[in-house]
Amino acid sequence: MGRKGIPVPETTQGELTMTANRQVLIASLPSGNMQASDFEVQTAELAPPADGQVLCKTIAITIGAGQRAGLQGSASYAGAPIAGRLMSGTGLATVEESQSPQLRPGDLVVGQTGWQEYSVHDASELRQVDGPADPGLHLGALGTNGLTAYFGLLEVGRPNAGDTVVVSAAAGSVGHMVGQMARLHGCHVVGVAGSEAKCRMLVEELGFHAAVNYKDSDFRSAFRAATPDRIDIYFDNTGGDVLGSALFRMNTRGRIVCCGVVSQYDTANPEPGPRGVPGLLVNNRVRMEGFLVFDYEEQYESARRELSSWVESGSLKPRVTEFEGLESAPDAFVALLSGQTVGTTIVRL
Amino acid sequence: MGRKGIPVPETTQGELTMTANRQVLIASLPSGNMQASDFEVQTAELAPPADGQVLCKTIAITIGAGQRAGLQGSASYAGAPIAGRLMSGTGLATVEESQSPQLRPGDLVVGQTGWQEYSVHDASELRQVDGPADPGLHLGALGTNGLTAYFGLLEVGRPNAGDTVVVSAAAGSVGHMVGQMARLHGCHVVGVAGSEAKCRMLVEELGFHAAVNYKDSDFRSAFRAATPDRIDIYFDNTGGDVLGSALFRMNTRGRIVCCGVVSQYDTANPEPGPRGVPGLLVNNRVRMEGFLVFDYEEQYESARRELSSWVESGSLKPRVTEFEGLESAPDAFVALLSGQTVGTTIVRL
Repeated sequence: MGRKGIPVPETTQGELTMTANRQVLIASLPSGNMQASDFEVQTAELAPPADGQVLCKTIAITIGAGQRAGLQGSASYAGAPIAGRLMSGTGLATVEESQSPQLRPGDLVVGQTGWQEYSVHDASELRQVDGPADPGLHLGALGTNGLTAYFGLLEVGRPNAGDTVVVSAAAGSVGHMVGQMARLHGCHVVGVAGSEAKCRMLVEELGFHAAVNYKDSDFRSAFRAATPDRIDIYFDNTGGDVLGSALFRMNTRGRIVCCGVVSQYDTANPEPGPRGVPGLLVNNRVRMEGFLVFDYEEQYESARRELSSWVESGSLKPRVTEFEGLESAPDAFVALLSGQTVGTTIVRL
Repeated sequence: MGRKGIPVPETTQGELTMTANRQVLIASLPSGNMQASDFEVQTAELAPPADGQVLCKTIAITIGAGQRAGLQGSASYAGAPIAGRLMSGTGLATVEESQSPQLRPGDLVVGQTGWQEYSVHDASELRQVDGPADPGLHLGALGTNGLTAYFGLLEVGRPNAGDTVVVSAAAGSVGHMVGQMARLHGCHVVGVAGSEAKCRMLVEELGFHAAVNYKDSDFRSAFRAATPDRIDIYFDNTGGDVLGSALFRMNTRGRIVCCGVVSQYDTANPEPGPRGVPGLLVNNRVRMEGFLVFDYEEQYESARRELSSWVESGSLKPRVTEFEGLESAPDAFVALLSGQTVGTTIVRL
């Protein structure tokens, strides 16, 4: 798309060469469903990299549903947000200018670029990746989404061949990879998603054994029918009703992997917790365990090797929904939260 | 109390010598709080033991709050109850008559006697125990209560020295032993109980570091004050509000041991699940795990050896509330469910 070779716009202020930098800011903290109008675009000036730093040009950013939790103003693992601040996020970027021996101009990196065209980082905060400059690969399957699916399923869920694995938000950034990895481990895989089209994709393209639309009026009976041997691992990306239904289908010594609570992020009125907690956990000796992928950082390298080999062999098919242009990031976020995206949500700049 | 040496009342019917046997039956399934009037006492005739069987005379039975779950008519690990049936329960008994080479008259046994004076069992269904005929020891510390505390704390909770361990229903049959065992493992131990008297006993007699009365209007602030380093292990016997409060005090990688749900047993209107599930489990990487003691049966023997040594050395002090006479069993059950008992509830016949 001709991004390479476009000169960086520069202005001079005092002795520093500043870079004009378009950014997306949080304009207001949403009180109910998030709107694109909760964000605003501005152009700011970016100081050049200091010693040990690099100037990066963003190729693409990825948006995750969990970022909505960081905009609730309440405690979350993403920390408290502040209106008027740059929207944070992970990006794939090219090094434009380097004051560090670790990176050279043209190097491809992944880091916390935020929603902006340019960013300056300590070189040590960036992770250099090999080409091609494929955002879906580096921000999806080999990014936080792929690693989250990997460690959540394998380390927390601990699948055995023959287990029934159910995953909610199954067409989402993490879910669509969880299901494929469970299938690779010999499990019977059932996805729960929010549209017929997503359910078809899961079964016809991604090898899920069954998929159930939670918006269908007969969801509960369809869910039961899809899990004739009940559930050994429920990988929960949603909380809410799907978690409630899964709790009543768990096998003895089943595991519930608590990965995310997307049903509760985009609302001012979170639901009460599911009935059946803790009673059903006792009766069925169920383990319900939350995790954050960052806790597995020491194992990222070996995980990425295995994820890469699956992608190369075609046994793991990462899915991506792409948006074009920085200004589309708020719309992409709203689309993601309202279930209109599939796989990893990417905004290409 | 002169129970020994009283002759067994007998009647003759056909060629069999029958034993007149007083029993407590479930008269009706309670719809709200259980009442003593939900039970009735009758005298039935008991056929003599067949080959391989023994006739037992009950010395004492123990009652557990979990038995209330078995009277809800809904699914529970205790199975569905039937009105008009003998109330089930574990008892300490003396073998009166034996048709098995495994047991002799006078032997002391623990088994599923039910709420009755006499019972007939296959010898293989009974566990012979050494004297003295102490119901509090055999049905409490070395019975299901002690084993439940032991495996729940050590195998599910996995305490480390210095951990803060909170236990609900802390003056109850399982809770009072959990706290003492946690203290033995070098933990900071906080009990939650339902009266000032119970709280005093926990701290002054059983070595808890602190105890909080959940019926106090300032429970939440007292609970926070008692857990300045937050909570590493919450041993949950209650569910409900105390679970809800504990969820918000868990440390990163905390463990919630789901042992029982006594707040929900004696009611027709169970509460919804706690807010914070699953969100707080994710943020704090909390593991919440249900267990049943029966799953650890293969380790009972070694556990009983350790429990015995603790009791003998005085480092584990089992507490018992005793009732006198079979007819008092329904009152004992109601007293237990309304929080009027401490430690293991025993009915001596």
